[in-house]
Amino acid sequence: MHGLACGVAKLDNSPPRGTRDMLPDEVSRRELLIGRLVSAYEVFGFRRIETPALEDISRLSSGEGGENEKLVYKVLKRGLDPVVDTGTSPDDLVDLGLRFDLTVPLTRFYANNQAQLPAPFRAMQIGPVWRAERPQRGRFRQFTQCDIDTLGEPGVLAEAELLEATLSALASAGVEPVEARVNDRRLLAAIATACGVGAGRRSSFLVTLDKLDKIGWPGVKAELVERDFGAAVAEETERVVTLLASAVDAGDMLARAADLVPGVADEVLGGLASTADALERLQQDPDGPSGFSYAVDPTIVRGLGYYTGQIFELRHPKAAGSVAGGGRYDGLVGRSLGRQVPACGISIGFERIVDLAEMAPPELGVAVVYDRADELGATLSAARRIRAAGRRATLVPKRSNLRAQLDGLSREGFTSFVVLEGGEAGEERALRSARPSGG
Amino acid sequence: MHGLACGVAKLDNSPPRGTRDMLPDEVSRRELLIGRLVSAYEVFGFRRIETPALEDISRLSSGEGGENEKLVYKVLKRGLDPVVDTGTSPDDLVDLGLRFDLTVPLTRFYANNQAQLPAPFRAMQIGPVWRAERPQRGRFRQFTQCDIDTLGEPGVLAEAELLEATLSALASAGVEPVEARVNDRRLLAAIATACGVGAGRRSSFLVTLDKLDKIGWPGVKAELVERDFGAAVAEETERVVTLLASAVDAGDMLARAADLVPGVADEVLGGLASTADALERLQQDPDGPSGFSYAVDPTIVRGLGYYTGQIFELRHPKAAGSVAGGGRYDGLVGRSLGRQVPACGISIGFERIVDLAEMAPPELGVAVVYDRADELGATLSAARRIRAAGRRATLVPKRSNLRAQLDGLSREGFTSFVVLEGGEAGEERALRSARPSGG
Repeated sequence: MHGLACGVAKLDNSPPRGTRDMLPDEVSRRELLIGRLVSAYEVFGFRRIETPALEDISRLSSGEGGENEKLVYKVLKRGLDPVVDTGTSPDDLVDLGLRFDLTVPLTRFYANNQAQLPAPFRAMQIGPVWRAERPQRGRFRQFTQCDIDTLGEPGVLAEAELLEATLSALASAGVEPVEARVNDRRLLAAIATACGVGAGRRSSFLVTLDKLDKIGWPGVKAELVERDFGAAVAEETERVVTLLASAVDAGDMLARAADLVPGVADEVLGGLASTADALERLQQDPDGPSGFSYAVDPTIVRGLGYYTGQIFELRHPKAAGSVAGGGRYDGLVGRSLGRQVPACGISIGFERIVDLAEMAPPELGVAVVYDRADELGATLSAARRIRAAGRRATLVPKRSNLRAQLDGLSREGFTSFVVLEGGEAGEERALRSARPSGG
Repeated sequence: MHGLACGVAKLDNSPPRGTRDMLPDEVSRRELLIGRLVSAYEVFGFRRIETPALEDISRLSSGEGGENEKLVYKVLKRGLDPVVDTGTSPDDLVDLGLRFDLTVPLTRFYANNQAQLPAPFRAMQIGPVWRAERPQRGRFRQFTQCDIDTLGEPGVLAEAELLEATLSALASAGVEPVEARVNDRRLLAAIATACGVGAGRRSSFLVTLDKLDKIGWPGVKAELVERDFGAAVAEETERVVTLLASAVDAGDMLARAADLVPGVADEVLGGLASTADALERLQQDPDGPSGFSYAVDPTIVRGLGYYTGQIFELRHPKAAGSVAGGGRYDGLVGRSLGRQVPACGISIGFERIVDLAEMAPPELGVAVVYDRADELGATLSAARRIRAAGRRATLVPKRSNLRAQLDGLSREGFTSFVVLEGGEAGEERALRSARPSGG
């Protein structure tokens, strides 16, 4: 390499704030994980689709995306005048934005292409999304989501299958044990009504209930009072939800709900019972993924406003928050298509599981150490001989200190080496593993 | 599905102008092709890296990207005031942009991470880039590039290996026959001088020469005269280049160059001779890719200004333009890093080869036709039995006209079906293939 300074000051070469470069070992690990998830999902008939990273800005600010809509990277129109007119808002200059999730694009995709899609349609999406969040440790402004969705299936088969596929996918990546928690938005609505909350204030009530995990009953009750729900509502909420949450199993919980929450439709409890039954049978099936537990949990809320039925949260003991989540959103496709299409999906938090997944570090195969003085054609042929058997062979120019070089190659992930002499390969020798193991 | 109209007017659900949705069969095909390219490149030791889609706008408007810099999607700063100050330019409101290629991000990546990278470093990148080009048939504003680059290798081993790896990768995808054309920017510079063109007007001269393919010698000569190079330069250019281009093989061409282009350095002709020799040996090696030809072609120019040495263009008879191209760009990393690092790369035009590649259409496996009236748990278990052997099994609700349904499943890509009766699987039967074959 040329050691000459070239007279240019060193620039800041970091990627944009909140984003990151991915080095080869990390990309290997991520691609291996993606491969496992894809294979697991394909077995269930989910098929990958892709949509553009950019969507019309109106679609990214329709209100469906909740808080995420505030975090959109907005793209300037092309061909603007060189000076902005007086009184212009920055938003007037924008026509596109980077997608903040994969669900908004999916509903547009389905509405755009449904004539060519089977019914029901099982979609798989793996790709980057962008949110201009305040950068913090472990959170990035570009990150990968991995979603499966079933569109056009009104029955609870969709829910049960999505959960089974996700549990299988996580198990195939070694992400175990997982706890699946299931609830239903309609049960939450009936609980709110049973506790004295009017329909108009239900969302606000659920936002507070959703914090139970973090702030406990004293916190939830204080916040309900602070938000003017009154002490009676707060006390009743604690009583009802605690009774429901202390059920010994799903059947017990659903029986208690029938009793304590008179407004809940039989269909809702029946649906939850079906999902719980499917999970129970899955757990006992030797062909199913092991290492998971499940519960019907009346305290699961899920933030997004578009859910209309069952909702899910999958947790792992080593992950803060959930490793996957989702639910039924029967109203969302209709807003694009103009007719209702039932839909249900689960999204794996790819960035949360990538460190939990058990992935062997990549093996780089044979380092073929050559001498720059040797004839090029002979060197290339020698490497080709090794590759002919489908093995990886990487040409590496010989350094003066071969021992130190071999140590470096071992750390890099090579498992063996060959030294070329005059373009002829010597004996292949193993490199002692000097690499931190993955997992 | 609910057939009820929901009172919402049907929206335009197309993706943004110039972008596209990708349906499952297309994604399958693309992923299969990516898998082939990745495997072929990994065998040579190239390793995938990833950089963010967004880069600082200053890096995307440094001049390195030539015409592409005019096509950048620019991203609005976050947290702007609601009304723009009088006299503001739209560019004042921008801090980021979507990358228009993978080379600019690679040089930043290398400068940012080189302490953790081996020397030489073989990088592979596959990912989307964005250019706000005028939409036209077959060209999209988001498209995939597939680049390999060797950084830190000054010798022609980099060139020869990049060409071999690319030819192997294309062959592994069935993209054959390919013709590899090699030239050197320094030879082009010497040809310009030999024909009477001063160094200051060399780029302009090469822009015209680059059109030879399209407009022939009458066109090139007319344009040179029009651009004030004079009739003598035009005539001499035709004479010299025609003599070089009519050589019977690479050796003859290089001998003619030594004679006709006195200003060219021995190192340049020696380098081209080495690359040609490596390609000759590769062609004769039974372990190498067959189905390619090669030539040293003095008329290859390549548009981008940053090339400093050998340049390549790979063509396929069915593709307009080239299917891959690249070259050496020893100066580019230095502008980020502050010290020179030799670099060379080849980019496959992924969108150009995706239709040429021979990829079998995906097999969707078994369609498991179930009755909605059957018990959910039994239906799911029956599908699980089939999947236990690793096969794909997709649950499909039974329609009233089974024969028509099976025809549809066959067209979709299913190879066999099972009908569940009371949750019990009947005999598995083959579906007659009714699918257009790929390729």
